[in-house]
Amino acid sequence: MRKASEVQEPKLYERVAERLGAAIAAGTLRAGDRLPSVRQLSASERVSVSTVLQAYLHLEDRGLIETRPQSGHYVRRRERPLPAEPEVSQPTSQASPVSVSALVTRVYRAANDPRIVPLGAACPSPELLPTQRLHRELALVTREASATAIGYDMPPGSLELRQQVARRSLEWGCPLSPEDFIITHGAAEAISLSLAAVAHRGDTVVLESPAYYGTLQAIETQGLRALEIPTHPRHGLELDALESALRKRKVAAVLVVSSFSNPLGGCMPEENRRRLVELLAARGIPLIEDDLYGDLHFGPLRPRPAKAHDPDGSVLLCGSFSKTLAPGYRVGWVAPGRFRQKVELLKYAHTVATSTPPQLAIAAFLRNGGYDRHLRTLRRQLEAQVRRMVDSVGEHFPEGVRVTRPEGGMLLWVEMPRQVDALELHARALAAGIGIAPGPIFSAQKRYGNCIRLSCGFPWSPQLEGALTTLGSLARSLA
Amino acid sequence: MRKASEVQEPKLYERVAERLGAAIAAGTLRAGDRLPSVRQLSASERVSVSTVLQAYLHLEDRGLIETRPQSGHYVRRRERPLPAEPEVSQPTSQASPVSVSALVTRVYRAANDPRIVPLGAACPSPELLPTQRLHRELALVTREASATAIGYDMPPGSLELRQQVARRSLEWGCPLSPEDFIITHGAAEAISLSLAAVAHRGDTVVLESPAYYGTLQAIETQGLRALEIPTHPRHGLELDALESALRKRKVAAVLVVSSFSNPLGGCMPEENRRRLVELLAARGIPLIEDDLYGDLHFGPLRPRPAKAHDPDGSVLLCGSFSKTLAPGYRVGWVAPGRFRQKVELLKYAHTVATSTPPQLAIAAFLRNGGYDRHLRTLRRQLEAQVRRMVDSVGEHFPEGVRVTRPEGGMLLWVEMPRQVDALELHARALAAGIGIAPGPIFSAQKRYGNCIRLSCGFPWSPQLEGALTTLGSLARSLA
Repeated sequence: MRKASEVQEPKLYERVAERLGAAIAAGTLRAGDRLPSVRQLSASERVSVSTVLQAYLHLEDRGLIETRPQSGHYVRRRERPLPAEPEVSQPTSQASPVSVSALVTRVYRAANDPRIVPLGAACPSPELLPTQRLHRELALVTREASATAIGYDMPPGSLELRQQVARRSLEWGCPLSPEDFIITHGAAEAISLSLAAVAHRGDTVVLESPAYYGTLQAIETQGLRALEIPTHPRHGLELDALESALRKRKVAAVLVVSSFSNPLGGCMPEENRRRLVELLAARGIPLIEDDLYGDLHFGPLRPRPAKAHDPDGSVLLCGSFSKTLAPGYRVGWVAPGRFRQKVELLKYAHTVATSTPPQLAIAAFLRNGGYDRHLRTLRRQLEAQVRRMVDSVGEHFPEGVRVTRPEGGMLLWVEMPRQVDALELHARALAAGIGIAPGPIFSAQKRYGNCIRLSCGFPWSPQLEGALTTLGSLARSLA
Repeated sequence: MRKASEVQEPKLYERVAERLGAAIAAGTLRAGDRLPSVRQLSASERVSVSTVLQAYLHLEDRGLIETRPQSGHYVRRRERPLPAEPEVSQPTSQASPVSVSALVTRVYRAANDPRIVPLGAACPSPELLPTQRLHRELALVTREASATAIGYDMPPGSLELRQQVARRSLEWGCPLSPEDFIITHGAAEAISLSLAAVAHRGDTVVLESPAYYGTLQAIETQGLRALEIPTHPRHGLELDALESALRKRKVAAVLVVSSFSNPLGGCMPEENRRRLVELLAARGIPLIEDDLYGDLHFGPLRPRPAKAHDPDGSVLLCGSFSKTLAPGYRVGWVAPGRFRQKVELLKYAHTVATSTPPQLAIAAFLRNGGYDRHLRTLRRQLEAQVRRMVDSVGEHFPEGVRVTRPEGGMLLWVEMPRQVDALELHARALAAGIGIAPGPIFSAQKRYGNCIRLSCGFPWSPQLEGALTTLGSLARSLA
């Protein structure tokens, strides 16, 4: 087994790059500024020249700096300032029943057409995934384990896969054992079973606002109530607001997408994660942590799940390989802590077992190595696509548009001027062959009528550029 | 597309064999009786000599008759009389909350060990399944449709697969269209979503008694109440008892395994299916029909689903390929009638999409032909195993044992003398390396304490014979 430290710790050049990146983000270094020379930086940082060169290459790859021949390295000049970020969301403080499903189904049935430009789908394009290698593993496991691969793989699911996920958990800084995991049909089933394990019809579940519509659907179909809490576009759930809400009402569970959330893209700072877990543990409230996007960090460090701070098994950590390897394989997992027995029982009752061949294929892929290499490439691609899309939104969308600046994942949240009706924009975009996710599906309170979520999962192309231009002009015509 | 008539109609020799088989079952022809000569029968039935020969061969394959050289065909003499059949079950007429899950989990976790003789598992052995061919199809679809196979296959699921299932529905005498189906992770998910679509927490659902424990678990986890109705071991749910129960209380749905039910093995006669559907339609009560074993009929005709009589879309027909092709692929379906939109919405919320590669592989297997041929072989094997197991139970189990005589599927229900404690037998059998399913997991009322379910899914072997002998003597020691 690789030691956790090998991957958990960023490489030296990444640390250097990270510091420079932070200085650029903070405005200490501004567009057009010349960066220190390679020798200067090598001396001041006490690292080798080649480490500095690697760091500069890395920043160039990330689109933050540019090299001018015979001159040096410069902070990349933007042609126009980036659009502002959205502000902290302000949902009402009432828990409410949820009824987004009809709208979601309508939105997504319309977008099933493969000719639609998929700006609404939160998954990476197949060309960014190791499709051939995974399929090869799938073919191999059916040959090598043919009787096993055709039979039921009863809960908790493939031991081989649980071992591989447990190994990765060391690298997240949240060491779990194979016995802690139950394999599920994607994170969706993990979330659905977790909700069913901790909440009953009529109970209230706390969510970020805006929140992932799939989670809202699970809450709706289980007859639960959603309480949306103000959420910061970069730091996630506002803990003061949460604490004050918990003082006022009984809550069955809190559910957060802790890293690069869907749709806001925020990533809860480590200190907030610790405080969140403590705050809930003190009140005996379980935390369902959706860690679906944790592996897709643009910075050098993978965020550590809140579960790492869990004192008593009250955190149900959910994840999957749908956003990093194979959406259609439907392989996810939950580490349900003290709710393990309940979740396993629910798993039996809902789908009995998880599909065997996809589990074995992903286990083999992880065992044979290359997942980390794949992730490094995928992160760079997604980061480039996200930054390009932010730029493009600034260029094409109406004056006053706000857009998030996620540091991981593949999603942008776009807040347009008040008068732009996102549902109308969705309908017009669809008629023009473009799929987007309209804001109202992300709230039990039918808020965000002037917002949309854009997916950056697909590589930049003239077709994509054209779609963004069209979308922007449709939005302007509604403004 | 093949015409429905080609498969739906039994061949001529099958009709002849069926009539003789019925005469044997009814006792008109008894053990040791000589059958009519080939020429006599050819004349009386107005069929060719070769048709009669085929019919006799068929009955010999089924173990019902034997050929004595230079003498003729005789009804096979049994070494000992078969054990009696169980009587109609008599559950109490109270609806009750369900709590079988803890027991089920305990029973099944213990049986996960692959060294256990699997008399408790309701699925055919991998050697009876077209494992290699299915796996080959799986490898092929990932090559030919690699980008498709890695992506989400959003509800209702693979069109190709739905087309294939719709074609088969013609052969069931219940023609449905691809648009009628939603693909699910096995029949388990189909049943779970169907229950959630028609019943809410606290509602009462009518079941056979004994009933499949997986369904009881789904009812338990959804907070529903189960009302068990007297059930005939050969004809299924007693409709007079059902009608009287419906007069007394409000019921949200009726759920039956219409063909070769789990665990009793009964098959509802066509006339009962019609009456059941009419009876429920008149009261506006939905019927969830679990048709998991319908393809595994030992007689020449596949039972027609009750859904064939559905006047207004109130029947939710559920099925899967878990018992005939690949348990571990987790591919099933539901034709939810007028509850289609609700079920599709629930599918999104619970698992989003069904695993793509297994869907495509099964669709390819069905398209490329050979499913009917495979089914013919599988049925003969299961029939032989079931008959052998009935014999063996009669030989080894305590005096007074009763056992079902299913005409399809792979399950036997064994009723032992009152004093035999099935849970104790389960524990002792497990200690001896034998898995069985104890009766109490099949009832919300904790009945059937002296019953067990045996699976005949595995080919006869000295090991299996030894397990039956051990099991019988353990049961005798408890009697």
